[in-house]
Amino acid sequence: MKTKPKRLPYELIAFDADDTLWVNEPLYHRSQDTLEEILTDYLESRELRRVLYRREIENLKIFGYGVKGFTLSMIETAVELTEGKVRGEDIQRIIDVGKALLRSPVTLLEGVVETLQALQGHARLIIITKGDLFDQESKIARSGLADYFEECEIVSDKSPETYARLMRKHKVDPDKFLMVGNSPKSDILPVCELGAATVWIPAQATWEHEDADETVMNASGCLRLASMRELIPALNQD
Amino acid sequence: MKTKPKRLPYELIAFDADDTLWVNEPLYHRSQDTLEEILTDYLESRELRRVLYRREIENLKIFGYGVKGFTLSMIETAVELTEGKVRGEDIQRIIDVGKALLRSPVTLLEGVVETLQALQGHARLIIITKGDLFDQESKIARSGLADYFEECEIVSDKSPETYARLMRKHKVDPDKFLMVGNSPKSDILPVCELGAATVWIPAQATWEHEDADETVMNASGCLRLASMRELIPALNQD
Repeated sequence: MKTKPKRLPYELIAFDADDTLWVNEPLYHRSQDTLEEILTDYLESRELRRVLYRREIENLKIFGYGVKGFTLSMIETAVELTEGKVRGEDIQRIIDVGKALLRSPVTLLEGVVETLQALQGHARLIIITKGDLFDQESKIARSGLADYFEECEIVSDKSPETYARLMRKHKVDPDKFLMVGNSPKSDILPVCELGAATVWIPAQATWEHEDADETVMNASGCLRLASMRELIPALNQD
Repeated sequence: MKTKPKRLPYELIAFDADDTLWVNEPLYHRSQDTLEEILTDYLESRELRRVLYRREIENLKIFGYGVKGFTLSMIETAVELTEGKVRGEDIQRIIDVGKALLRSPVTLLEGVVETLQALQGHARLIIITKGDLFDQESKIARSGLADYFEECEIVSDKSPETYARLMRKHKVDPDKFLMVGNSPKSDILPVCELGAATVWIPAQATWEHEDADETVMNASGCLRLASMRELIPALNQD
């Protein structure tokens, strides 16, 4: 992709990070596979993922997003499903799954580096991501992408209010703002609500909680792309 | 304390939050007492706090600061000290200790409200705090203090680089900046290093990791006060 962007109608382009710039959700899926292996001695049932998901949602309002809360939810699920019989060593293995997740290498998605390079100097670029402050900062540093961005905004929730606050902070009107992300619920719909432009690049795997109705997405007015590689060509067609 | 500040030599006054604006460390101590009670069936020894502290420090570079990392460290300590014999129900009790910590009411320290009221309009006020993004935002909201502050900066580490970045961001020179906090290591020494003014208000309890040498503190040039009540009178004496 050598294409350079034409004169862009946007002053500020914001990118989501997890599953937009780099692989994330598949790592969580792999962690759940490991949890299933750890609990295989105790459980016959296939109900693990359902119970874990329910527990994660319940805990979201206490823990917020991120790996540490997910790890605590895995432990609670293990205690619940084994009726307290889970062994200490297996609890430690679950914590080690969480630690591995926090340390796993950052794998960039295809087209990300080329796209950011091409956009340099044509618009201000920022990251808007939610999750653990410490974990997200560490991933941004390890990704090698930090220098492309004017600022990395790590927020606890991606509501329309959050986006409105960030637009004010970065002194940009909604009609000069573009958000690029994979999550309908967090990256696309709240930004559409403010009348700003959005590019939706669905990830191969998206956390159930972040998913949205296909009809809603079609009505949202977002531009849907298959990969980051398509972003510059799409912007040039505008 | 009705005293109004005279013309202040500072444009921006930053406050640490935990144990500067509100009670925090005593809640962690109480959690450790509960952990001790939970593990009393398994342990005779008094080594719990030592092992927990060692584990917390080890985990700091993986988890960062905050309650969720502390909870995971409590669980690891329980598994280690009971040699894996800790029961599932007791693991759940430890997680519940962490959840209670995340939900505990915010108790303001004495003189905080009056001081912030008196400073209103005389300098720009911000919070600089480290820890879990979600937890800190929630405490700021529950404290009722948010409106006194122009911005709340939640950072993953309080290094001289962090403070220098925040001074640039808030467009203030070090000689017009004052930091008020309880932790020598996080609030005072890195700010002194940049040549800015500091007020040290030691808390009744400070986490061991945040403590510093008395001699170092005397040499640092910080102003030491016994309580937030003394801040305005001290500024007026300058």
